[in-house]
Amino acid sequence: MFGRTYYCGEVPEKAIGEKVSLKGWVQKRRDLGGLIFIDLRDRTGVVQIVFNPEINKEALEVAEKVRNEFVLDIKGTVVARQEGTINENLSTGKVEIVVDEISILNEAKTPPFTISDKTDVAEEVRLKYRYLDFRRPVMFETLKMRHQVTKIMRDFLDSEGFLDIETPILTKSTPEGARDYLVPSRVHPNEFYALPQSPQLFKQLLMVGGIERYYQIARCFRDEDLRADRQPEFTQLDIETSFVSQEDIMNMMENMMVTIMREVKGIDVPAPFPRMPYDEAMARYGSDKPDTRFDMELTDLSEIVKDSSFKVFAAAVESGGQVKAINVKQASDKYSRKDIDALTDFVKVYGAKGLAWLKAEEDGLKGPISKFISEEEQKAFEAALSIESGDLLLFVADKANVVADSLGALRQKLAKELNLIDPDKFNFLWVTDWPLFEYDEEENRFYAAHHPFTMPKREDIELLDSNPKAVKAQAYDIVLNGYELGGGSLRIFEKDIQEKMFSMLGFSKEEAYEQFGFLLEAFEYGTPPHGGIAIGLDRLIMLLSGRTNLRDTIAFPKTASASCLLTDAPGEVSQSQLDDLHLALKAPKQND
Amino acid sequence: MFGRTYYCGEVPEKAIGEKVSLKGWVQKRRDLGGLIFIDLRDRTGVVQIVFNPEINKEALEVAEKVRNEFVLDIKGTVVARQEGTINENLSTGKVEIVVDEISILNEAKTPPFTISDKTDVAEEVRLKYRYLDFRRPVMFETLKMRHQVTKIMRDFLDSEGFLDIETPILTKSTPEGARDYLVPSRVHPNEFYALPQSPQLFKQLLMVGGIERYYQIARCFRDEDLRADRQPEFTQLDIETSFVSQEDIMNMMENMMVTIMREVKGIDVPAPFPRMPYDEAMARYGSDKPDTRFDMELTDLSEIVKDSSFKVFAAAVESGGQVKAINVKQASDKYSRKDIDALTDFVKVYGAKGLAWLKAEEDGLKGPISKFISEEEQKAFEAALSIESGDLLLFVADKANVVADSLGALRQKLAKELNLIDPDKFNFLWVTDWPLFEYDEEENRFYAAHHPFTMPKREDIELLDSNPKAVKAQAYDIVLNGYELGGGSLRIFEKDIQEKMFSMLGFSKEEAYEQFGFLLEAFEYGTPPHGGIAIGLDRLIMLLSGRTNLRDTIAFPKTASASCLLTDAPGEVSQSQLDDLHLALKAPKQND
Repeated sequence: MFGRTYYCGEVPEKAIGEKVSLKGWVQKRRDLGGLIFIDLRDRTGVVQIVFNPEINKEALEVAEKVRNEFVLDIKGTVVARQEGTINENLSTGKVEIVVDEISILNEAKTPPFTISDKTDVAEEVRLKYRYLDFRRPVMFETLKMRHQVTKIMRDFLDSEGFLDIETPILTKSTPEGARDYLVPSRVHPNEFYALPQSPQLFKQLLMVGGIERYYQIARCFRDEDLRADRQPEFTQLDIETSFVSQEDIMNMMENMMVTIMREVKGIDVPAPFPRMPYDEAMARYGSDKPDTRFDMELTDLSEIVKDSSFKVFAAAVESGGQVKAINVKQASDKYSRKDIDALTDFVKVYGAKGLAWLKAEEDGLKGPISKFISEEEQKAFEAALSIESGDLLLFVADKANVVADSLGALRQKLAKELNLIDPDKFNFLWVTDWPLFEYDEEENRFYAAHHPFTMPKREDIELLDSNPKAVKAQAYDIVLNGYELGGGSLRIFEKDIQEKMFSMLGFSKEEAYEQFGFLLEAFEYGTPPHGGIAIGLDRLIMLLSGRTNLRDTIAFPKTASASCLLTDAPGEVSQSQLDDLHLALKAPKQND
Repeated sequence: MFGRTYYCGEVPEKAIGEKVSLKGWVQKRRDLGGLIFIDLRDRTGVVQIVFNPEINKEALEVAEKVRNEFVLDIKGTVVARQEGTINENLSTGKVEIVVDEISILNEAKTPPFTISDKTDVAEEVRLKYRYLDFRRPVMFETLKMRHQVTKIMRDFLDSEGFLDIETPILTKSTPEGARDYLVPSRVHPNEFYALPQSPQLFKQLLMVGGIERYYQIARCFRDEDLRADRQPEFTQLDIETSFVSQEDIMNMMENMMVTIMREVKGIDVPAPFPRMPYDEAMARYGSDKPDTRFDMELTDLSEIVKDSSFKVFAAAVESGGQVKAINVKQASDKYSRKDIDALTDFVKVYGAKGLAWLKAEEDGLKGPISKFISEEEQKAFEAALSIESGDLLLFVADKANVVADSLGALRQKLAKELNLIDPDKFNFLWVTDWPLFEYDEEENRFYAAHHPFTMPKREDIELLDSNPKAVKAQAYDIVLNGYELGGGSLRIFEKDIQEKMFSMLGFSKEEAYEQFGFLLEAFEYGTPPHGGIAIGLDRLIMLLSGRTNLRDTIAFPKTASASCLLTDAPGEVSQSQLDDLHLALKAPKQND
């Protein structure tokens, strides 16, 4: 305890009568009837300390100088609070400390915002004064939860025989994937290191090296245009293991997550988690990371409407697309025509040309398109969508991916608006059987859906040439409440398949060897079958702590423009630093 | 176990009769009397597997194709080895596996070096094929020890209430100190992040934020000219805590080290560790990180020889220097004149102008300078240096720092040559009471001996103006066997003292605020007294594992020229990457 008897928030009732020493910050001071009351705070909470001129007049005089956020070292006696002054909301609400001695360890200016969980100060101010933000209990509790979660991960993986191994931060640029952060080299003029986007190649090389079970809580870097849920540096639990099946890895991760949920949230999550193939997730939820805490699934009506007299529906099916609908239960009263117009604008963002709708009333389906829908089609809708009076039906007719994206996003938006989501529910899900490739129609080329080291399903290898779009990967994503927590795969461990993969992705043999020659060479020396997974730590903590922002889970985050408001990084550097690195600055282009 | 019954090195005698499944690498194959014997290896060790044509002829035929480092999946029956074929040196030496089924999971070319602890291949080859190097048991054991040590640290600190908190890798350049690695920003043209030399400022800001107890196993970066014991990126256990004394921190670290030594080495190290002020360490050992596993201390003879007729001695004292000697016990026979000439060359590297010597014989001190040494001086030497017949005495007369550096280094060299050091001994030591400043005579300015955030001793603050060289710091280094394991200090937490410190170091007020304004501003909002320490993890593992090279403790290290021989980092990048970063390359200068 380093010279303290208790932490402020932990002074127990049984300490009444004890002489104690406490240290902490002034949360609040009140002067009342010649006495001074101070709420003294440390990371554990608050305790009331009292200055009484009859006990020590000098201490009271010092206390008169004290303001919020002063740092105090006090000694005093724990006494029971009088009846009527007991604070049941406070862990220490039945006691107070009558102070004998006070020493002001440091003073404080008035902070730019009140140190309290409830603050409406702009996030920019909290980031600039992050050290004051840390004093808000909710920030401390989030950092503490982050510590607890990583501790549980480490204990779990240690007990499973995994070794925590550090991989380099200064490494080689691999232009495939996101944009690398580069680090100029002084010793090797005009050459650069890159910060790793993930330890992927290193962890595979550890498997080649017979380490068998590796993990790391690894910092990763991507110089991407940032969105609200992206950070230029982020942290992942990175795992790789040899001689395993996909099920082995999924089972192990389930056990880990169950442990975390039990120890951190006190919730028993049922395992095994549901498994859902990618195609099914897209079909039923219009998402590769479905939130299964509520229903409102997408229903395919293409068969029903393929000859519909409503030409929009028939034409969509005719041209190879789909017609799908969601049934928003008992929502027909809640959405006016104007509201539905707004939903139509919303789905247009996802490429949909429109949003058809019907409201179920006692005497049938009503709405602008109802006159085009035959009696028979209505009956078929009612059966397919389990329609009851009062339901709102929303339809999108378009190419399959547009239908999925727009209805998937709409489903999520409506669930939030209608409060269909239980915030205390934690629904884990595995999405499996991913396509190996994504096809970029503009560039007319294939990209790796996960990364170029993902193993295709053995039975699909022969399709690599004939029908690459149909090739499935031995890949799996873990989804929590509609967020992708992480993903993994079994890896290619045979040189010829890896070479084939690079060639599918448009690498010449020379290019493949220039960038990944060390991996291909390693595969010649007895590489075991292996696979792994990476779990996004920042996002996991966000979901477990109920925060809505990744930045709140990171001690010193960066803004959407990749700045640190506290230290003002990045910043200018001196000419001599640039000279050392053999670099010259260029003026940014006008449109930058 | 993922489809294995046992790891290779752990097949127990009690498994005899059991059907087992094993996976691993071929360490060695021997064909003998129609049978094939293979040593199958995984990270736990080796087990012998046998192919017998009478059991399964097809399996034997597959085994005939097997070469070293092939990856096998086998099933078979554990049997007792016959009398006379038992291998007592092997954990599984009493059993072997008679194979029913074999599957070759992957093939292997002949590796460029044998997978064995004993290898004389050049380190460059080991680094290029690091994945093969990992298969050597000594490399696996070192990485495993590193895992164990960090696990113990984390468990210990967790139980003491410390939170593991990540600090940024992309941060702000602080030109004071070593050279920063810089990272150009794409979003902020012509601005740069820097990689942290340590999380120093962030951990102090966490203390301002009331976190109270922080730790991190933190990656740090220094773009320095590399020596054998330096890496561009290295790892430290980084600790900071509030409301503590120097003794509190030292006690806690002792408890941690005692735990590590017990659990990892099975050694009970006595605690508390000895404490030695910096001045005493320099006086007695000529080193600020003395190796106390052997004696041979430096003895100050200045008083004795200040009027000596040996002018070199008298003149050194006269001009404010010192004359010191070490007594190399019973070594007079072991060092010829020629050997001593070599020692003289050695000390010249440290600035000494020469090395005087005497050998103790039955009838007195003999050697080239003995004729200048009076009877009385000889007597005084004998008392001061506890001289016995057969001893070798080595003298340096020079400025105090030259005497310390040269005799300190000589002491260490001789102890190694004479085998005076017990390699199983682990001598921890605290060096305390450091000077706050180092004075650079060439630049005529002060540098911070630790860093600019170190708190001077309270009673020395008044000397900051009058006699800065005499100001001692509240700083402490932990030393193990002559290596600096780490160091720490109490920190300045008052704005006026921190401003004074920056001004002593030559910063104008504007410069101080431009670089460290956020820290100075933080100090205005109720900063608690705080302090911490950082322990070099790479070096600790090197000492505990008995390796002689930091690179052997790091999975993917860099060479002395900061290259990665495996991935070939750093490397060239594309013009479009440079354009994105608003950078142009400059030709290196001729003398680069």
